[in-house]
Amino acid sequence: MPISGHKDIQLAHGGGGRMTQQLIDGVFVPAFANDALKAAHDSAALQLGGARLAFSTDSHVVRPIRFPGGDIGSLAVHGTANDLAMSGARPRWMSAGFILEEGLPIETLREMVASMKEAADQLGIQIVTGDTKVVERGKGDGIYINTAGIGEVMAASPIEPARVQAGDVILLSGDVGRHGMAIMAQREGLEFESTIESDSAHLWPAVEALLEADLEIHCLRDLTRGGLAAALLEIASSARLGFQVEESRIAVEEAVAGACELLGLDPLHVANEGRFIVILPAGEASRALEILKETAPGGSRAARIGKVQSGEPGEVRMVSLIGVERILDRPSGEQLPRIC
Amino acid sequence: MPISGHKDIQLAHGGGGRMTQQLIDGVFVPAFANDALKAAHDSAALQLGGARLAFSTDSHVVRPIRFPGGDIGSLAVHGTANDLAMSGARPRWMSAGFILEEGLPIETLREMVASMKEAADQLGIQIVTGDTKVVERGKGDGIYINTAGIGEVMAASPIEPARVQAGDVILLSGDVGRHGMAIMAQREGLEFESTIESDSAHLWPAVEALLEADLEIHCLRDLTRGGLAAALLEIASSARLGFQVEESRIAVEEAVAGACELLGLDPLHVANEGRFIVILPAGEASRALEILKETAPGGSRAARIGKVQSGEPGEVRMVSLIGVERILDRPSGEQLPRIC
Repeated sequence: MPISGHKDIQLAHGGGGRMTQQLIDGVFVPAFANDALKAAHDSAALQLGGARLAFSTDSHVVRPIRFPGGDIGSLAVHGTANDLAMSGARPRWMSAGFILEEGLPIETLREMVASMKEAADQLGIQIVTGDTKVVERGKGDGIYINTAGIGEVMAASPIEPARVQAGDVILLSGDVGRHGMAIMAQREGLEFESTIESDSAHLWPAVEALLEADLEIHCLRDLTRGGLAAALLEIASSARLGFQVEESRIAVEEAVAGACELLGLDPLHVANEGRFIVILPAGEASRALEILKETAPGGSRAARIGKVQSGEPGEVRMVSLIGVERILDRPSGEQLPRIC
Repeated sequence: MPISGHKDIQLAHGGGGRMTQQLIDGVFVPAFANDALKAAHDSAALQLGGARLAFSTDSHVVRPIRFPGGDIGSLAVHGTANDLAMSGARPRWMSAGFILEEGLPIETLREMVASMKEAADQLGIQIVTGDTKVVERGKGDGIYINTAGIGEVMAASPIEPARVQAGDVILLSGDVGRHGMAIMAQREGLEFESTIESDSAHLWPAVEALLEADLEIHCLRDLTRGGLAAALLEIASSARLGFQVEESRIAVEEAVAGACELLGLDPLHVANEGRFIVILPAGEASRALEILKETAPGGSRAARIGKVQSGEPGEVRMVSLIGVERILDRPSGEQLPRIC
């Protein structure tokens, strides 16, 4: 049975947009069917004895492997650690699986491994198990890194789309679009007055601060592939509720906006690696926003961007500066291949 | 600093022989330095609250992806599950990370995912989290699968090389060399009277039976890349003890022996995906051997193959049929690329 009209895998199946979702819904969820997968969250919640664990994985194929603000090594650690943090879990342990192409300079491998270690050390994450495979020239692309992570769930109640309620407020932790545009600017050789730096960073410290303040957090989501738009659409759809978002409250750096315009991209769909949204009761929003401003990477631009309504399930309405509403949609295809 | 005289990654760095060990010792262990990695075991032993976990990962790049006795999907589950079993842990949860090449038939993906599910179901393993990346044509090779697994440690005492003692006995769970030769025979188009089937299979049921018999198991190791030889050499080296092994006790299927001779390979160095060794006190050997014969895949050929001595640390002496001793060595290079 074809997926989204295709019999073969397309680049867009990995882009985080509609085709990725179709692949997940059409192939993985039916095959692996279990409650953890169905929860449609960034990481799986597991119980063992008295321990509550979060478990998540990401493969990293970003090109170029070095970019302003990071590299494939730090990204491989941030990516998986942030997925755990989004379940209210402190990242504890990580595995590292390398697929190397014959001919990769060993110095490059050393550099990426050192970068992984540095990123892991920031949170006291231990990289405890690993694996290396080598493929022939032309069967890989230098270095691919998979990480899987185990976190210790610190949140008292589950943090997941199912807990989102009408009346909740949506907070955004900082400006959007940096990571994707940092990669694209370098790949396309675009020059701006100021270099666009990736936002790749750990989100756990900000999540920990929110948890320690005893806020009733309903959902967290980092804004990776597919950007803010995909995150909002996925959660609205899982929660079977409608969202209303004020576009003017979403911060976009000038250079990022310029690069997006040049490449015909919408910053709402561009991947971030150190930004997230928080959904929680309206009464707790201002305290949460204060905490984000102090603790989140890029938090000085954190903002309350919208609210949850009992409207059409899965619908995200964007309100423009002049009050015009539009319905947010996923791009069907691949905007930015190999961004993470 | 070059590794084994090379500045660039060679295929042999992924082969499981001396160059793989040099890469691990020269790059990964110094960078990620922690006790779990230093234990030099197939999986890491972790503690969280009262829970004892084992954690392991493997990436799979085998070609062809379908072979007699299995495919890359079942192999990706067996490989990681067996690493957990070797720590005395019941495999519980798994992650699946796919790196797909643009143009892969979606039917192939479905088939491999179904094969993963079937292999996981055999032990009640849940595949709870996943990730898919797509790379451009010519930057991958159809499908690569990473799995990471979490197991629940059931063994009362740690099962690890450090517990091996002089006087212990070495048991082998079945005949060796099938997996590697099944792949190579297909890749090279070799035909034998009987098809060589991979031994790819779950080892946990046999390990569970050994644990339930309350045997004092010191070490377990599955015989993957580098085969029986690499496993013996690694454990002897970690345990700082000498091993003596009687070559005549090691079963090799006739077709496997023939294929090895044709390709100039030593079956002791060929990868298996469903065979393991057990090291335990001499007094418990006959009961353990009985259990292996009943429960291990290929167990009818299980045998007591050798013993642990206080001799030269890391030295494995092979005694031939006529009593001549030779010292076992790792092949320096790559015998069999992309076997798993």
